Amino acid sequence: MSQPKIVVLGAGYGGLTTVAKLQKQLGVNDAQITLVNKNDYHYESTWLHEVAAGTIAPDKGRFKITDVINSAKVNFVQDTVTAIKANEKKVELENGELDYDYLVVALGFEAATFGIPGLLENALTIGSTNKARLIREHLEYQFAQYNNEAEPKQERLNIVVGGGGFTGIEFVGELANRVPELCEEFDIDRSKVRIIVVEAMETIMPGFDPALIEYAMNSLEGRGVEFKLGAFLKEVRADGITVEQNGKKEEIPTMTTVWAAGVRANHLVEESDIEDNRGKVEVTPELRAPSHPDVFVVGDCALIWNKAIDRPFPPTAQIAMQEAETCAHNLVALVKGGELHPFEFINRGTVCSLGENDAMGSIFNGKQIYGWTATVMKKVIDNRALLKVGGLGLVLKKGKFNIFTSK
Amino acid sequence: MSQPKIVVLGAGYGGLTTVAKLQKQLGVNDAQITLVNKNDYHYESTWLHEVAAGTIAPDKGRFKITDVINSAKVNFVQDTVTAIKANEKKVELENGELDYDYLVVALGFEAATFGIPGLLENALTIGSTNKARLIREHLEYQFAQYNNEAEPKQERLNIVVGGGGFTGIEFVGELANRVPELCEEFDIDRSKVRIIVVEAMETIMPGFDPALIEYAMNSLEGRGVEFKLGAFLKEVRADGITVEQNGKKEEIPTMTTVWAAGVRANHLVEESDIEDNRGKVEVTPELRAPSHPDVFVVGDCALIWNKAIDRPFPPTAQIAMQEAETCAHNLVALVKGGELHPFEFINRGTVCSLGENDAMGSIFNGKQIYGWTATVMKKVIDNRALLKVGGLGLVLKKGKFNIFTSK
Repeated sequence: MSQPKIVVLGAGYGGLTTVAKLQKQLGVNDAQITLVNKNDYHYESTWLHEVAAGTIAPDKGRFKITDVINSAKVNFVQDTVTAIKANEKKVELENGELDYDYLVVALGFEAATFGIPGLLENALTIGSTNKARLIREHLEYQFAQYNNEAEPKQERLNIVVGGGGFTGIEFVGELANRVPELCEEFDIDRSKVRIIVVEAMETIMPGFDPALIEYAMNSLEGRGVEFKLGAFLKEVRADGITVEQNGKKEEIPTMTTVWAAGVRANHLVEESDIEDNRGKVEVTPELRAPSHPDVFVVGDCALIWNKAIDRPFPPTAQIAMQEAETCAHNLVALVKGGELHPFEFINRGTVCSLGENDAMGSIFNGKQIYGWTATVMKKVIDNRALLKVGGLGLVLKKGKFNIFTSK
Repeated sequence: MSQPKIVVLGAGYGGLTTVAKLQKQLGVNDAQITLVNKNDYHYESTWLHEVAAGTIAPDKGRFKITDVINSAKVNFVQDTVTAIKANEKKVELENGELDYDYLVVALGFEAATFGIPGLLENALTIGSTNKARLIREHLEYQFAQYNNEAEPKQERLNIVVGGGGFTGIEFVGELANRVPELCEEFDIDRSKVRIIVVEAMETIMPGFDPALIEYAMNSLEGRGVEFKLGAFLKEVRADGITVEQNGKKEEIPTMTTVWAAGVRANHLVEESDIEDNRGKVEVTPELRAPSHPDVFVVGDCALIWNKAIDRPFPPTAQIAMQEAETCAHNLVALVKGGELHPFEFINRGTVCSLGENDAMGSIFNGKQIYGWTATVMKKVIDNRALLKVGGLGLVLKKGKFNIFTSK
């Protein structure tokens, strides 16, 4: 294996960080690196809630993949993966096929619909640039239609967000700021618009400290957000939803249901011949698939147990990027010789945005932060992700520097 | 009649110019002036094609009515007129009733659908701020959906404009500039988008000089606009239209049909007890309704024969504003004494915008102008309309000054 072929699937946080690290540590002749991605751009999936609410332009939250890869070392293929055939060491693409010596599966997440009737057909999700800007346009279109109807429909102004987890709350935070702008633009009273979070658990942001949760709910309720906790989404229709809370069913008319409550690994993993555990690959400490040691899995498709809290690590950008660093190190070790490292998570803190001027979370030492301090820390985290995949040039181009707004 | 009651219906070019002139020439005790309008703002209906294409913000093309009326002299009532009862000298509103000594009907136009099947239900029109921004959002929503579908639908990218008259061509000119921006924003090849003008006559801009028409078609075709001339719209569906050209029927898939081909006077005129001629009032030279001399009619609801070309004057802002000046003069004469004047049209020229950087038309002396010169003249005309209704303050706030772009 004089020049091993390394194929990386997906240019999200996991895939792109892997490639960024590989191209630094491997020489031109050490390996043939190929990166496959559906789009010719990487999007900041942790910024998509802003694109979806319409508070940042889609272009702000993405960049060309060719701007950050070294084309002397990495071959970029813009194509869609259709199948992984690990037994044959092959990947099938819409327009071709690739064989590999080492494969990195970094295909990210897709929405999990838990079989809720009508969800797949009628709800919007925040999973990509395309989907996020569809939400923005969908919202604006509802507002634009409202004053054009002989009988204005309240369901155009009711916005339901399914899920009070990280994505749902960050989206609602932006939405709470965006709605007054939309009302002004389309001549609609703010008091007519409802933003309703439906969460099956008895709390939003499960796992966060109760003081942080309290802070977030106060911030959002102060901007007119309603919470339905312990409430189950039973059905999603084009013009309404059914919710069950405390054994009682309620119908809420709405043309806009945004589903932010569940993600699963890309379906290609489950469909492949790699051994999986409910769609994810329960990787070895070195992040290899037990059934196929030449396959590494990073990011949302990898299942790793966090022994400290006896739960799996959640699908976050921070974890995907840390996994990518271990994965890249181990690939370099396999190609050039050296010791493989097990993945170890270093908690750099988690900050949840609550809109342009508010946020909450905890930093690396566990200290809780709120408000302006937290918004600044959030920007530090966002810029750090850019630095990791694209270096300082990318940070300067796309980074968030205005510490008085989130843009 | 010590303090006659003057009621003006509509705050478009005709109604607002009438009020602007009346409040200058009448003292506080000369008359009770009431202006009735559905919205609390006046919109520049000659700028709506820009709002509809998304090339200017809706707010740029409108202003608060209370910003330009003198509240000591004019009472503004925000309400919708539901009926004119000229025999009883009364106007019925959604929330009340007004009686008058003199009435000015300046209610403008609405779309005429000529009984084309599906047109009313499925086509968009450019008739108000609300309708124009609905077109903008509708277009963006189609583009946003395109890349989110397993099988992208071409009908989302086909835009049909019914009518190659003034409004249709000005809209298409903006659209031809806007579409490349939309393509960039939503990652769509410009070559996939079609802009199709369907016009029943064998020419666009009937009545314009052939050299000007040739210029306009070249400008628009150069930006990818297709013309179907001598083509009749036979049916409009939610996802397509049927066109008949040279006896042959063709189906064009489209989710976006913008109808800019026909206007008629506000239906309240025809429904009233004022004598009308196919929905319009054929007014006396002094602009009074022959059946009710205390009723003046200006703008799109008035029918006045242009003897020079043996055709009625078209429904344009220029004519509405000139009629309003005559109407205001005559009302002042009736209230304070003096001679009534007949309406006389002074041709100040007509310039048709072809988008941000192009226009064509003729000026007061009949001289034809093209390109940049015409875009400058168009801005002069637009600013002049602002000056007439709101004075210099309004021109400075909303006027178009950048002579290198149309914004």
